[in-house]
Amino acid sequence: MEAKQKVVAFLGPKASYTHQATTQQFPESDCTIICQSSIEDVFAAVQTGTASHGVVPFENSSNGSVVFTLDLFADLQGRYPDILVCGEIYLPVHHCLLGHVPSHPSPKVDQAASRSLMSDGDSPDVSGTVTPTQAAPRPELPRVQPSHDVKGIRKLYSHPQAWGQCKLFLSTYLKGVERQDVSSTSKAAEHVAQDKTGTSAAISSKIAAELNGLSVLAEGIEDNEGNSTRFFVLRRRQEAQKSEHVNEVDESTEMERYKSLVMFTVNHGEPGALARSLEVFNKFGLNLTSINTRPSGETQWHYIFFVEFLGRKRPEGKGGAVNDALNELDQVARSWRWLGSWESAFKE
Amino acid sequence: MEAKQKVVAFLGPKASYTHQATTQQFPESDCTIICQSSIEDVFAAVQTGTASHGVVPFENSSNGSVVFTLDLFADLQGRYPDILVCGEIYLPVHHCLLGHVPSHPSPKVDQAASRSLMSDGDSPDVSGTVTPTQAAPRPELPRVQPSHDVKGIRKLYSHPQAWGQCKLFLSTYLKGVERQDVSSTSKAAEHVAQDKTGTSAAISSKIAAELNGLSVLAEGIEDNEGNSTRFFVLRRRQEAQKSEHVNEVDESTEMERYKSLVMFTVNHGEPGALARSLEVFNKFGLNLTSINTRPSGETQWHYIFFVEFLGRKRPEGKGGAVNDALNELDQVARSWRWLGSWESAFKE
Repeated sequence: MEAKQKVVAFLGPKASYTHQATTQQFPESDCTIICQSSIEDVFAAVQTGTASHGVVPFENSSNGSVVFTLDLFADLQGRYPDILVCGEIYLPVHHCLLGHVPSHPSPKVDQAASRSLMSDGDSPDVSGTVTPTQAAPRPELPRVQPSHDVKGIRKLYSHPQAWGQCKLFLSTYLKGVERQDVSSTSKAAEHVAQDKTGTSAAISSKIAAELNGLSVLAEGIEDNEGNSTRFFVLRRRQEAQKSEHVNEVDESTEMERYKSLVMFTVNHGEPGALARSLEVFNKFGLNLTSINTRPSGETQWHYIFFVEFLGRKRPEGKGGAVNDALNELDQVARSWRWLGSWESAFKE
Repeated sequence: MEAKQKVVAFLGPKASYTHQATTQQFPESDCTIICQSSIEDVFAAVQTGTASHGVVPFENSSNGSVVFTLDLFADLQGRYPDILVCGEIYLPVHHCLLGHVPSHPSPKVDQAASRSLMSDGDSPDVSGTVTPTQAAPRPELPRVQPSHDVKGIRKLYSHPQAWGQCKLFLSTYLKGVERQDVSSTSKAAEHVAQDKTGTSAAISSKIAAELNGLSVLAEGIEDNEGNSTRFFVLRRRQEAQKSEHVNEVDESTEMERYKSLVMFTVNHGEPGALARSLEVFNKFGLNLTSINTRPSGETQWHYIFFVEFLGRKRPEGKGGAVNDALNELDQVARSWRWLGSWESAFKE
């Protein structure tokens, strides 16, 4: 029997969306997967070699970038100098409201749904109506309604990103209910499973319901039907380079099928420094697909810029547009770092 | 007696940092200031004319942009078409730990500070030591230590941004203590004031301590000494233009003393579209100072870009680099919107 060679660290706990993304890419039959309690612990496991690969969330299609992950790439304390992105995983995210089905007389969901607009907009009792406010005189409607009574819910647990992805459902059915942030959506389900009063609920995944013996009170409560999260697969530079299969493909294929991530800083006092750095990518035909800005941590109001573009960095000395662009970036940026190139997993 | 003509809506509650920024810029002697419970309510008050001005947080020097504010500018539902930025306010942010001074025998803070590294790193009892971890083998030290015993604290309240600004203090003195996110740092102080057990504490401002009858258990607990937040002053387009004092200054002064904010979208299918849009600003000598990216809300993985640069848009027909750049941006971007020009309030 062959030993499992891949050890994959992921942001846990079990049943988190990162866990789902991890098992989708790394089947447990050939890999040992190890659960970490923070994104930083995943970076550390890969940097120190405890794990050969790491999986971390990078971006949600509704909420934007995960700033914790960006800040770990920025690596202001120089702890993760060898971390490279070597792959990406897209995972559709379907949030569910998980909790305890009330044992009192059967709920009247339909009645709740047709309740008058006159209800007190701040009471957790209100259900099925969207209160027009000054800010939103014609509010949108949520995509789904609860399959069980949610009137008894007094406290909600979830990851901070999930609130932003389920705004319409929450403002319609659970307006004003106390919210408790926890470190992951699956942790949220654990909290609710432990609550014996049955008055709390979690925004979490269907898998977490099974794992924690909870009921799904509403399914697919995210605002946008196509809500999905993109994860990065991390490796250590040394390992990534050792196992590099230099698929010899032509440059136009590289620019269609591969993506790269680069970060840089500029001299803020120098007019046009940012534009000149960005122009370098254009000059070599590298199509920028996104830009993120984070505080540099060194000087107030100075930034680190992250750019993602289509293209693949070849090994040093092998030419190609990305190496050419990085050589030129070196002339105009204050500092820069290549954070990896990988094959795109995006499907329209 | 003259009527107060300015009505200024700000993100409350009372004693919030936004409140402090507001009173710094708009003295209560000539303005009526009105407290709003969300950033969106401030936008709505200005859009509908309930307020002549609004004050919202835009960016913190340690944590980066306030994504809620960016998303309101992005205005996907078309609710705030007339909101313009007409000014900025910088406010130094000094966080304090507020709570109840324990009535039991006087604390031994010095002893706590010299406690051995062997303490259980996850217990809220640990104080004054920084536990080396795999992720941080040589942790930095916090800038201050508590002036009172914090061992009895079982729960912390604050705004989500504050945790990120006080990481070192929290991981040293309050590691593992349960955290409850609330909508503002001043709301956090209110919660703690209501807690009769005396086992909770808030990360909030010194002013909030006075207002809520709480003690300052530690002062200046932010990681970065220069931690500050930048706020935007909002006006309605119609009002901003009516009261526009066209200070006739030459273009080089405009490009030193003024800032502008523009957002745009690009055709993602078109290679180089983002770079070409950014290049427009460079072409007209406008120095980009920051770029933010947010999901477009229309199509998954399409973005809205926000750029800030030095320069001032003149009224239509009055020429100038900003008008020239926007005319050209119109040719290359899919859509764009000017979000205001204002005099810089930044002092080195």
